[in-house]
Amino acid sequence: MYIGVDYYPEQWPKNRWPEDVRLMKELGINVVRIAEFGWQLMEPEEGVFDFSLYDEAIDLLTKNGIKVVIGTPTATPPAWMVQKYPDILPTDPNGVTISFGARRHYTVNSRTYQEQTKKIVTEMAKKYGQHPDIIGWQTDNEYGHEKSDRSYGDEDRREFQAWLKGKYGSLQELNEQWGTVFWSQTYTDWSQIPVPRKVYQEHNPSLLLDFDRFCADAYTKYNKLQVDCLKKYIREGQFITHNFVYTDLAINQWDMAKDLDFISFDNYPVWGGLAEPITPAAIATQHDLCRATKHGKGYWVMEELSGAQGWSKIGYLPRPGHIKLWTYQAISRGAEAIVYFRWRAAHFGTEEFCHGVLDHDGKPKRKYNEVKEVIESLSTFGDDWIEADYSAEVGAYYDLENAWAWQIQPQSDAFIHREEFLRFYTPAHKLNAMTDIVNKDSSLDQYKVVIVPIYFLTNPQFTEKLTEYVKNGGTAVFSYRSGVKLPNNFVTGQSLPGALTDLAGIQIHEYESLQSTQQNTVRGTKGAIEGIQSPAKIWCDLIEPTTAEVLAEYEDCFYEGTAAITKNSFGKGTVYYIGSALNEELLDSLYQEIFKEASVETVSTPDSVEIVKRTGKKGVYLSVMNHSTEEASVIHLPEGKWKDPAAGTYYEGKLELKPLAALVLIGQHS
Amino acid sequence: MYIGVDYYPEQWPKNRWPEDVRLMKELGINVVRIAEFGWQLMEPEEGVFDFSLYDEAIDLLTKNGIKVVIGTPTATPPAWMVQKYPDILPTDPNGVTISFGARRHYTVNSRTYQEQTKKIVTEMAKKYGQHPDIIGWQTDNEYGHEKSDRSYGDEDRREFQAWLKGKYGSLQELNEQWGTVFWSQTYTDWSQIPVPRKVYQEHNPSLLLDFDRFCADAYTKYNKLQVDCLKKYIREGQFITHNFVYTDLAINQWDMAKDLDFISFDNYPVWGGLAEPITPAAIATQHDLCRATKHGKGYWVMEELSGAQGWSKIGYLPRPGHIKLWTYQAISRGAEAIVYFRWRAAHFGTEEFCHGVLDHDGKPKRKYNEVKEVIESLSTFGDDWIEADYSAEVGAYYDLENAWAWQIQPQSDAFIHREEFLRFYTPAHKLNAMTDIVNKDSSLDQYKVVIVPIYFLTNPQFTEKLTEYVKNGGTAVFSYRSGVKLPNNFVTGQSLPGALTDLAGIQIHEYESLQSTQQNTVRGTKGAIEGIQSPAKIWCDLIEPTTAEVLAEYEDCFYEGTAAITKNSFGKGTVYYIGSALNEELLDSLYQEIFKEASVETVSTPDSVEIVKRTGKKGVYLSVMNHSTEEASVIHLPEGKWKDPAAGTYYEGKLELKPLAALVLIGQHS
Amino acid sequence: MYIGVDYYPEQWPKNRWPEDVRLMKELGINVVRIAEFGWQLMEPEEGVFDFSLYDEAIDLLTKNGIKVVIGTPTATPPAWMVQKYPDILPTDPNGVTISFGARRHYTVNSRTYQEQTKKIVTEMAKKYGQHPDIIGWQTDNEYGHEKSDRSYGDEDRREFQAWLKGKYGSLQELNEQWGTVFWSQTYTDWSQIPVPRKVYQEHNPSLLLDFDRFCADAYTKYNKLQVDCLKKYIREGQFITHNFVYTDLAINQWDMAKDLDFISFDNYPVWGGLAEPITPAAIATQHDLCRATKHGKGYWVMEELSGAQGWSKIGYLPRPGHIKLWTYQAISRGAEAIVYFRWRAAHFGTEEFCHGVLDHDGKPKRKYNEVKEVIESLSTFGDDWIEADYSAEVGAYYDLENAWAWQIQPQSDAFIHREEFLRFYTPAHKLNAMTDIVNKDSSLDQYKVVIVPIYFLTNPQFTEKLTEYVKNGGTAVFSYRSGVKLPNNFVTGQSLPGALTDLAGIQIHEYESLQSTQQNTVRGTKGAIEGIQSPAKIWCDLIEPTTAEVLAEYEDCFYEGTAAITKNSFGKGTVYYIGSALNEELLDSLYQEIFKEASVETVSTPDSVEIVKRTGKKGVYLSVMNHSTEEASVIHLPEGKWKDPAAGTYYEGKLELKPLAALVLIGQHS
Repeated sequence: MYIGVDYYPEQWPKNRWPEDVRLMKELGINVVRIAEFGWQLMEPEEGVFDFSLYDEAIDLLTKNGIKVVIGTPTATPPAWMVQKYPDILPTDPNGVTISFGARRHYTVNSRTYQEQTKKIVTEMAKKYGQHPDIIGWQTDNEYGHEKSDRSYGDEDRREFQAWLKGKYGSLQELNEQWGTVFWSQTYTDWSQIPVPRKVYQEHNPSLLLDFDRFCADAYTKYNKLQVDCLKKYIREGQFITHNFVYTDLAINQWDMAKDLDFISFDNYPVWGGLAEPITPAAIATQHDLCRATKHGKGYWVMEELSGAQGWSKIGYLPRPGHIKLWTYQAISRGAEAIVYFRWRAAHFGTEEFCHGVLDHDGKPKRKYNEVKEVIESLSTFGDDWIEADYSAEVGAYYDLENAWAWQIQPQSDAFIHREEFLRFYTPAHKLNAMTDIVNKDSSLDQYKVVIVPIYFLTNPQFTEKLTEYVKNGGTAVFSYRSGVKLPNNFVTGQSLPGALTDLAGIQIHEYESLQSTQQNTVRGTKGAIEGIQSPAKIWCDLIEPTTAEVLAEYEDCFYEGTAAITKNSFGKGTVYYIGSALNEELLDSLYQEIFKEASVETVSTPDSVEIVKRTGKKGVYLSVMNHSTEEASVIHLPEGKWKDPAAGTYYEGKLELKPLAALVLIGQHS
Repeated sequence: MYIGVDYYPEQWPKNRWPEDVRLMKELGINVVRIAEFGWQLMEPEEGVFDFSLYDEAIDLLTKNGIKVVIGTPTATPPAWMVQKYPDILPTDPNGVTISFGARRHYTVNSRTYQEQTKKIVTEMAKKYGQHPDIIGWQTDNEYGHEKSDRSYGDEDRREFQAWLKGKYGSLQELNEQWGTVFWSQTYTDWSQIPVPRKVYQEHNPSLLLDFDRFCADAYTKYNKLQVDCLKKYIREGQFITHNFVYTDLAINQWDMAKDLDFISFDNYPVWGGLAEPITPAAIATQHDLCRATKHGKGYWVMEELSGAQGWSKIGYLPRPGHIKLWTYQAISRGAEAIVYFRWRAAHFGTEEFCHGVLDHDGKPKRKYNEVKEVIESLSTFGDDWIEADYSAEVGAYYDLENAWAWQIQPQSDAFIHREEFLRFYTPAHKLNAMTDIVNKDSSLDQYKVVIVPIYFLTNPQFTEKLTEYVKNGGTAVFSYRSGVKLPNNFVTGQSLPGALTDLAGIQIHEYESLQSTQQNTVRGTKGAIEGIQSPAKIWCDLIEPTTAEVLAEYEDCFYEGTAAITKNSFGKGTVYYIGSALNEELLDSLYQEIFKEASVETVSTPDSVEIVKRTGKKGVYLSVMNHSTEEASVIHLPEGKWKDPAAGTYYEGKLELKPLAALVLIGQHS
Repeated sequence: MYIGVDYYPEQWPKNRWPEDVRLMKELGINVVRIAEFGWQLMEPEEGVFDFSLYDEAIDLLTKNGIKVVIGTPTATPPAWMVQKYPDILPTDPNGVTISFGARRHYTVNSRTYQEQTKKIVTEMAKKYGQHPDIIGWQTDNEYGHEKSDRSYGDEDRREFQAWLKGKYGSLQELNEQWGTVFWSQTYTDWSQIPVPRKVYQEHNPSLLLDFDRFCADAYTKYNKLQVDCLKKYIREGQFITHNFVYTDLAINQWDMAKDLDFISFDNYPVWGGLAEPITPAAIATQHDLCRATKHGKGYWVMEELSGAQGWSKIGYLPRPGHIKLWTYQAISRGAEAIVYFRWRAAHFGTEEFCHGVLDHDGKPKRKYNEVKEVIESLSTFGDDWIEADYSAEVGAYYDLENAWAWQIQPQSDAFIHREEFLRFYTPAHKLNAMTDIVNKDSSLDQYKVVIVPIYFLTNPQFTEKLTEYVKNGGTAVFSYRSGVKLPNNFVTGQSLPGALTDLAGIQIHEYESLQSTQQNTVRGTKGAIEGIQSPAKIWCDLIEPTTAEVLAEYEDCFYEGTAAITKNSFGKGTVYYIGSALNEELLDSLYQEIFKEASVETVSTPDSVEIVKRTGKKGVYLSVMNHSTEEASVIHLPEGKWKDPAAGTYYEGKLELKPLAALVLIGQHS
């Protein structure tokens, strides 16, 4: 398998390079990513190309047995270009032009920028497309990151109008699909349509959702432009990828992935300003998203955090052990290659506090040794592991457009899409069920349970698929506020939960948005949750069961006694509806029951412990990871003997896990 | 009386209309408001008019016995207009042009917009001005709402300069009245005068106050323009009104009301993002403001909340019973007609989460039934009730310009004008005294007590009137920070409380602004408040009595022992001065004493219960309303038998009130 | 000595002037500052000058024995100028032009403004430069205050580029010094270089630091332009000064001071919106900064707060006694003249709530009497006192560029430069050690201890000087995060603490930035702090001693037991390194030990009491000041008899201090 580092030879004197490469070899890496911010070096003035620096670096690396992934440098248009073509700069919602001086200062909708992109990418493809040791390409860097996903300038507006024309064909259709009759917004000319610049109130939610779709499509198109340029000149075997982030940006990783050989991911469980890492389940979701993006295909972690990160504010210092833990977690959940960010902390620039495998002083120390240990431990089994079968019994629905719709209308000041998705995903993760992310294009056949959190913006294709799935015996779990919106961001005219009404066997005629200072209480009335109380936050659906049975009720307010959780039989399957944002305790118990009934395989562990099971040629791989930095844990291994291939030791029965312990065990089990 | 709904036929398929009208008739309404956002429908391109949709809707409605109020659609200039005349768009204080895409995206100072307005209003007046079942007109919609009261563009600036020229005649006068000698701001040319765009520090407070006055005047003038167009063509009997909000905007409802037959009000006790409704007293104030705007004349509630409201954030869900409660409260305090917002929740647009009498599914449910019950209960006595005499013994001073002056200089980070006004109004409301809002134009003769809260910006006409009033035996209650400012927003050169010094019989030579983290303590030393302690917040006036007696003192800080509340005899009357922002307990006791001494009729009830007494032809109407959603209350009725005309039952002595109970009782008492 | 007031005759009717002057004489003042905002009066239209108002005022004042300091009025360019030359207006980072309407609405980089400045200053110099009773000049007013230190317009950008050309000579050098290879920022043309306008992420930290230097230099140059104009025409004996604020602005007081005869300071221990004054140590630092700016030379307090201050929000009311206390503190620490702000509170303008010696009513009251008492008390000894020797044993390092570097990269959300500087300065102040502020240009010979707080951006000249100093027996105290940055804002390539490694006898290979919600614990393990625990906040350096001994350790996290404070012998001297932001208790004990070992003279008092010792011709002056508004204190005087010259009384041994007591005692001691 590939393990490497992100390397910026241009940031170091050439007389340091040999020492860097020596240390890399000693570390045991076999790949580096380079060049993704090097436009100015490669094209110091318009049309003049100079690849000598990277040539030299690539020579040195590859002669020492290190393969190279090369990035197109389009995240950083050079100063000369901005000077000559200021129209490439993006625009914020107030009409302020984003300045040169950092990165991502371009709008994908700029024709000029598209032309400039074609030129540099083509030159690079010609130059490096046949190199035997350059194994692949990364296009640009983290599309859309840092608010660069949406631009609101004149050229953006013209492209938006053109996109809308393509989508709707006629203004009549657009006006109907947006409900522009509201507030007299009917458009009689395409050029009247605005991008969502500052208004006194709020824009039309249908326009806003289409603007997000447009922004995402514009990036997909832009990436395709790069891919097309590359494909003309690169050899068989060189891959093309892009390093995504998954933070509900107006970027459609799924669509873009169609033009990529595989996707990559930048894995930062903690970043500048954060006092602690995101939860194990939150990191796990990101990996599940990565694996889902190309429908189960493995992916690269193109940037794997190795030290404290941040720009003007530095975040939490990853503890000794975190490197191994997060690396093992990534591979467990589908990563096929790990590239650590970054080889060494820079002495200058905005990211000088992004710490790497080496710190500013360039000396191998703790982190270097940790990475070394990881590489050594992986050497005995890594390749079989990354190819091992990942087979999930639980699917969790995630749809970008739903995320955007929630961002447009969070409805409660306490609603944060990412957190609410995690609320309904985390119990599955804590039970160590094997999970996938699914969407409208996924086959649901393999899943015993499909969790459908905050399914606000419905997708008819998915609804239909899910209905079939339940009819045939599947189990579906809905949360509050499901079935509300049609794809054009209209509210359904049906009684709620709209198209899910029969599935769930309920009707919802009243609901309450709760602000962050408000809450109700829910108490379980049946089954595993009987007697368990939970605060009910953010939203309360007042459920009227038709065919469903009641599992929990509200305890306060005028709707005291009203159903809060229901369970319905539909066809051969079962449908749960959870009407409010409940706490972990109640949801954990509920999920335990649901999974038990659906025969989902779970492993009971302390909350901080994550277990992932993969099946390879050499046996069953059991990753066991303790995310706690403080608490040791004892877990019970599944039956039989388990070998730790790195240490060469065997375990059976109980296993003691130190804080941040991460092991991969091999057994001969099913 | 008129009871109706706000209806948007354009937002629904025509084949739904008959069902809507059927349900409306069943509900018992007799009026709808329509068309106030329908400009694009009525003028789909410049100069081309098409009233067919509204014609059809009006036909259907009126044939079914429902009268129509029609709105001019100028809150929503259509897309074609913005495209053709982008100069109509308003500008924010940073110079950012407000975009098309929501509503209220025009500046009243745009000549172009004034011309466009004249055309559409004139066409509408011609079209509908003689219709026998169209009973009246609403101009525009909620002037100034959502920061649309102030615009800072070039045309606004020119109009501001012209307005100043009209006001001051000469630059010398303006320079003197503004104190422009400070910081070298003396203007030598009218065109030098800015609108208050972004500065490093803060603008001249006199300029800021005049800018607010100008903005309000510009809207008054703009409304007059609409009224003039209408009056040319409408028949005798069609009224003209406007639906105001009262949130201290730079809008002068009093001035504008002169051009209206009566005023209307949009009554939203709770809105998007609010976790609970504003207080009963806060709602009551708004109704008192409505009644005051045309000096006691009744008004319409043109939008009465019927469900949860909000744009991207939905507010508190009104509880079962709130519709009736708030309707009864509105009528009790002077509303003559109630129009519920809105008939049915929209499927699209920014306001799709503004819930109506019907929800998105269009089915009559709880709210429909509640409205129906209200209409039925009102049918037996509503007309006599709305015409019944409302006679107040307590006046509370409210002056828009004072509110603006406070917004310009809140002086403490804890000061919020609306809340501080309520601090000194609420005790009267809790004692169920009958209250009016008064200002410089009001006769004070009828009042036993006049409360003058936070009378910072003085009005010489009112001060004089009040002095006469007290001299003749009236009682005045001042709060802290009174008598400070002259009408041009200068600080008085007199010792404080300036022109009120003799009235109050005190001098104030020191005072302290308290930030939100600071407080002192006040203890009552005499009378009803003797021994009662209260935190003293926001502001402490250190009072030196001259002729006044001391009722309370400060307990902390170097001014421990200094007077905090005083009472003075002036002429035949009495003047109280309350030097700090004190809590409810102390103020309630103080007001009780003040009202007792002044023989103000009060009714002792729990805080949540509001009682209003009106005298009609059929007897005395006693509205009894319990605003608590949780607590039942027992109150003691005034002597004699009281009939509940809706239920046909009689009460005497004790009356039990459930949470949110709202009754109107008729008795034959004085 | 000079004691006076800031007077604005232009803001008052001329018939009030004689009364003002009479009250001033009665008060005992001998100087006023005037005219610093009077441009429009002096040049009512371009090129037309009229000094009649100030002539008249100056005549009246000087005939009454009051000297005059005159200010150039360039903080307030008049309306006619902005109208004619809008290019003088500054620009914010979003590109928004700052409007006319307040003050400081110019960019120093405007050529036009420089020309306008030359004209008015030259005219004033010609007019008043020979006046025998005008004793000096203040240029402009509070350069850079209120965000006016940085402007981001086109002309600013051109000047920045020119400045950079001057500094670096070649683009190659600039590119290297800024590390522009990072993110492809290499400049190939000077005109490509931006000012730091809005970007999606953050600008290059080296650019940002140079931009701050440029802004400071531009102001220095601008001030020099005024000084040059003045010097051509003013008589021998008229001084030139400027009233600084010291709030880490992009203003270089040290550089600017070279062109001034002495510096002045505006002393506001509390301001609008503040609920309480800054700490005694914080005020003391400001005075130490003033004294340091011209290397020990005395300075004027050109604006000494006399009442509550604020624009739209009024701050804490200074208590009776504060005027004397803060006056005595100012003089104790080096002020040679006190000018109270302001004579009388204005009736109009943005600063109408800046209260003065007189309030709006113009009557002499408490504050007038307090000032009078101060002036009287000073009359017997003031002149000898202000000339008395101020001799410090402790130096505290403060470097503007370090402050800017921290502002650019605070690294933790809990880091505030001013507070962290004070964290390591305050213990010295509480021990009543005599302190100086030092920097690279200071001789360190006189100091027994040099405190070097948060020495992030190193200065090689200072590091070298300090190394020599320690080698020769001095004691240095470093805090966390020292030695990190090179002057070009690069991170050092050495292991930390970089150039201080040998001095401190430690290495730091790991560190942790703590966000405001995080903390560790440190426990003293040796000496005076043994057993004392303190929270460790903001930052933890994990110290590995090489030659140093350990004084304290961390108690939590994976680095439990790691050194947190160390002490090292270097040459004949001693170096302490404090690796985290610790609390007062621990630092106080540590400093006590350090000072004892270094034989620094300290006086033990309650925290609120400040003692300053000066040696004059008539003896030793001991200022004794109790900053507490609540608590009385008893202190022990140094041996011998002490005379209170103002009261004529003597003290020996114990001295009781009431809250806010301020005394100056004279003794005949060393």
